Amino acid sequence: MLIAKVIGTTVSTIKEPTLEGRKLLILRQTDVDGVPFGKPYVAVDTLDAGIGELVLTAHGSSGRQTEITQNRPVDAVIMAVIDHLSVLGEVTYQKE
Amino acid sequence: MLIAKVIGTTVSTIKEPTLEGRKLLILRQTDVDGVPFGKPYVAVDTLDAGIGELVLTAHGSSGRQTEITQNRPVDAVIMAVIDHLSVLGEVTYQKE
Amino acid sequence: MLIAKVIGTTVSTIKEPTLEGRKLLILRQTDVDGVPFGKPYVAVDTLDAGIGELVLTAHGSSGRQTEITQNRPVDAVIMAVIDHLSVLGEVTYQKE
Amino acid sequence: MLIAKVIGTTVSTIKEPTLEGRKLLILRQTDVDGVPFGKPYVAVDTLDAGIGELVLTAHGSSGRQTEITQNRPVDAVIMAVIDHLSVLGEVTYQKE
Amino acid sequence: MLIAKVIGTTVSTIKEPTLEGRKLLILRQTDVDGVPFGKPYVAVDTLDAGIGELVLTAHGSSGRQTEITQNRPVDAVIMAVIDHLSVLGEVTYQKE
Repeated sequence: MLIAKVIGTTVSTIKEPTLEGRKLLILRQTDVDGVPFGKPYVAVDTLDAGIGELVLTAHGSSGRQTEITQNRPVDAVIMAVIDHLSVLGEVTYQKE
Repeated sequence: MLIAKVIGTTVSTIKEPTLEGRKLLILRQTDVDGVPFGKPYVAVDTLDAGIGELVLTAHGSSGRQTEITQNRPVDAVIMAVIDHLSVLGEVTYQKE
Repeated sequence: MLIAKVIGTTVSTIKEPTLEGRKLLILRQTDVDGVPFGKPYVAVDTLDAGIGELVLTAHGSSGRQTEITQNRPVDAVIMAVIDHLSVLGEVTYQKE
Repeated sequence: MLIAKVIGTTVSTIKEPTLEGRKLLILRQTDVDGVPFGKPYVAVDTLDAGIGELVLTAHGSSGRQTEITQNRPVDAVIMAVIDHLSVLGEVTYQKE
Repeated sequence: MLIAKVIGTTVSTIKEPTLEGRKLLILRQTDVDGVPFGKPYVAVDTLDAGIGELVLTAHGSSGRQTEITQNRPVDAVIMAVIDHLSVLGEVTYQKE
C-alpha cells in the first residue's frame, strides 16, 4: 500500500457503466510525515475520505477486493484513512 | 488510475485474433492541469475518446474488467473521459 | 520480493471492514546490507515482525496468498523475516 | 501496453517445462518514433515478430491471455506488430 | 520478464508456512551483456540456478504459474536459465 494525501476530485460524464456512482479522487503519494511528492494518481473512495486527509491505497487487482470496486475497471482503492503514523517509536503524522 | 491525454493512434495488421476491432490509442500521463509528461503508452479505448481529450486509464488485470477487454491480452483501458479536475477546491482542468 | 526494513506502524479507525485486526506496518526497501533507501510503503504483517527487522515482502495479487490477507484490499504482505543474506558467498546481513 | 522494438533473442536449455517451444525475444521500449530507450526486457512472441520490428507488449497477467501463454510463468507478450503510429494526426512511425 | 543475475541467497526461519523448502535467491537485473544494474530483488528458484548465472524472472501473478510457487505469497520466479543472448545478430552473453 502507499501512503497518500487526497488532493482533489474528478468529474466524468462519459465512463464505463459499472463506474456509475463511484467517487474517483486525486491523490499524491506522501512520505511518513504526510508531505506529498511525485505525480498525481486516481483511486476509488469507499470510505468518504476528505480532501487533505492521509489515506492508504491498494493497487492492481487488490484495488478490486471491496464491494464497491469488485469486477470494475479500477486499479486503486482507498482502503484506510490514517489516524497516525509512527516511525521508530516517534509519531510522524497525526490526523487533526 | 492515471490521468492521461490521448495523443495518437496505432494501426496493426498482425495481432492477436481476440484484438480484432479493438481501438488502441497512444496516451501520455499528465499532471492535474492536463500537461503531459513521461513516455507514451497504449490503452484500449472503449469510450470513443478523441485525440487531445483527458481520460483516466486503469492498468493491469483491471484493464480487462470491461466487456470489450475481458480475457484479452491488453493491460490498459480508458475507463473515463474527464470533464474537469479540481485540486484543493480549484479547477485545474476543464474539458473544452 | 523486495528486501525491506520495518520502520513503523499505522493506525486507522476508518478502514475497509475486512481489514479489522490486520497489522499494517511501514517499510522501506533496503539493499543487501540492510540499509534502507527510497520511499516508505505499507504491508500487512502476518509474522509478528518487529520494528528494525529485515523482511521480504510480496506484492500485488501475491500479497493476498496468505490466510490473513486473502480476498482483502491489500497489495503487500510480509512473508518472511530474514535471518541472514549472503552475496557471492559473503554474509552481507545478519539478524542480531 | 508499451511500444517496443524487438532487438534480440534468448536461448535457454534449462527452463520451466511449460515454456518448451515458446520464443522469448528481447525488446526495448521506444518512443512514438520507434527510437528505443531504457533497459531491455523479454516477452513471449506469438506473432513471429522479426528483429527490428516495432510491436506492442502486454504485461502482467494480461501477458497470459493468449493460447500460447496461458497458465505459464510469463509476464509479457507481444500482442500486435505495429504498421504505423500517428500522433496528433502526423505519422511518427511507418513499418518499412 | 527481466534478465537478471543470481547474486546471493536468503535464509529465513520465520516465514509463511507455504514457503517451507522454497529457495529464495537474490538477483539484480542486468543488461544484455549480463552486467548488473539497479537494486537487488528476490525470486523463488525452481531450476537450481547457481550464483553468477544469468536467468529470466517472471513477476507478479505470473510468478505463481509453476508447481512450486502456485497459491503461495511470492511475486517473482526464475523460469529460465540463459544459455546465450543475441542482439541484432551478435552474441552479447554466453554462459560459461
